[in-house]
Amino acid sequence: LGPGVEFDMIRRFLSADPGAGLPEEVRVGPGDDCAVIGPGDLAISTDLSIEDVHFRRDWLEPEEIGYRAAAGALSDLAAVAARPIGVLAALALHRRDVDVMAQAIMDGVRGAAAEAGAALIGGDTSRSPGPVVLDVVVVGIASGPVLRDGAKVGDGVWVTGELGAAAAALRAWEAGALPRPDARAAFARPQPRLREALWLAERLVMHALIDLSDGLAGDAGHIAAASGVHIAIDGKTLPVHPAARAAGGDYPHLLAIHGGEDYELCFTADDAAVLALAGDFTARFGVRLTRVGVVSEGSGVSIDGRDGTPGGGFDHFAGGDA
Amino acid sequence: LGPGVEFDMIRRFLSADPGAGLPEEVRVGPGDDCAVIGPGDLAISTDLSIEDVHFRRDWLEPEEIGYRAAAGALSDLAAVAARPIGVLAALALHRRDVDVMAQAIMDGVRGAAAEAGAALIGGDTSRSPGPVVLDVVVVGIASGPVLRDGAKVGDGVWVTGELGAAAAALRAWEAGALPRPDARAAFARPQPRLREALWLAERLVMHALIDLSDGLAGDAGHIAAASGVHIAIDGKTLPVHPAARAAGGDYPHLLAIHGGEDYELCFTADDAAVLALAGDFTARFGVRLTRVGVVSEGSGVSIDGRDGTPGGGFDHFAGGDA
Repeated sequence: LGPGVEFDMIRRFLSADPGAGLPEEVRVGPGDDCAVIGPGDLAISTDLSIEDVHFRRDWLEPEEIGYRAAAGALSDLAAVAARPIGVLAALALHRRDVDVMAQAIMDGVRGAAAEAGAALIGGDTSRSPGPVVLDVVVVGIASGPVLRDGAKVGDGVWVTGELGAAAAALRAWEAGALPRPDARAAFARPQPRLREALWLAERLVMHALIDLSDGLAGDAGHIAAASGVHIAIDGKTLPVHPAARAAGGDYPHLLAIHGGEDYELCFTADDAAVLALAGDFTARFGVRLTRVGVVSEGSGVSIDGRDGTPGGGFDHFAGGDA
Repeated sequence: LGPGVEFDMIRRFLSADPGAGLPEEVRVGPGDDCAVIGPGDLAISTDLSIEDVHFRRDWLEPEEIGYRAAAGALSDLAAVAARPIGVLAALALHRRDVDVMAQAIMDGVRGAAAEAGAALIGGDTSRSPGPVVLDVVVVGIASGPVLRDGAKVGDGVWVTGELGAAAAALRAWEAGALPRPDARAAFARPQPRLREALWLAERLVMHALIDLSDGLAGDAGHIAAASGVHIAIDGKTLPVHPAARAAGGDYPHLLAIHGGEDYELCFTADDAAVLALAGDFTARFGVRLTRVGVVSEGSGVSIDGRDGTPGGGFDHFAGGDA
């Protein structure tokens, strides 16, 4: 797990619950993107979206609040190469928001679920004393889950797509500006790489896998920590999204390295195996595969030879007054 | 589903997602206490606890906030006769609360899970702009789930334990008083009837089953609606908890009928089959079984011959200013 108050808190929670005490049905316990429970190889994850922490209501339409929360949650299934089955949505709204927002938020949840081949199978609703609260639970089948702990020394580190667009939108809003349409779309309607992850997993290419929710530096750090390896990122190879490139100065690379919520995949693999499939992959999905680093002995993440961990990731306890 | 804004909202959510569109792996979709997914017969439910809606921080210790939320969520597994396996906890706290509350809340979640034979297998954490938000996801195995839709005309309606204690605590706090210790314990540390439900399910006694989270009137209404029957409650047979009886006047019966969060079981069954087991049940679990009504043709719930539905249940959108 990477740095920051949020991760420290998660680490504390989990350290008091050693894997040795898990019921035999639990195949993957806490610490990866999903828990996996057998029989049935069900992958389960839960993902909170809270107003004024994860989004502001003047940034997103209600339907987008639901879509984005569900897409981000579904990305946790992509992160272990699971096939989506169902979504449960726990939604709390202030009474004044029920009539205007509830249906649209749930339409967004249902839309993201349907695009992923999943159905809304349950949930909970409540009054909120203020902020919109949406916790999305995703359930999928992970017959051959790819976890964070399989990276091997000598592996290449690969990412799908382009990085930094959602962070560029966030930066624009926080500066009081309007984001570019492509940046806004990346933030409001992220596309979890579910089919891409399954396709790669079926071909047994990936040794370790995660989705880029905290940012490349933070998420590569999760793989490094779980696998007991060092990951060296080569900054000049990063596939920086045009919306991030437009930020100018040092920002494009910072957004691509530390910007959260790209929901692209990051995996480690034998480079030759990836190169043999990359053309087919891009032809099928219209998404690039880019080698951005290498796995070596050691620990932590470096970027162009410098420590990449401090301040990395997207820390929901950092920044802001609340 | 019963009356009230909360239930209307749930009904709206689910009505747009017809069961016909569910993936084949979904054995029980939205509308019962849990979704059930095969293969593996995994039962899944999610349950929100939000500060100043479900509890106030001057009522509960942080450990109790976690325990109560997890116990209430686990009760949804009891409500379909599922065996608990795992719990995922999504917790959001204001930064000022992290150090003092996070560990204790999670200790409470873990304690309730451990008592139920389940482990903490995942979760999420976030900053909150204000209130403590805790969504507990429960996962169990429901080899023979007992649902809400199986009530038969002529069945008796039975409940476990005694009713109204949690509501008596709530009433005391809201009146500015301190609740009796037994009432406070019922609210702060509810005991989901997991082993009791499994024991009864193994003996094939129950035709329809629910847990009393919304209150007997509301929850019997859920069974009536799902089963297409009428349920007539006989008020004088209700097993009113001593803490509710102490309220005086009409309150004892109102608390027992409409008070939420007792987390006892309510089921319908052939009376003779229940009577044959009731002695064993009470000897084993130290919990009474009481017949409180009968299933007949029709719809809705009546209490002593009067309509029992309006204002029934524990509506998280009703009452209060927020």
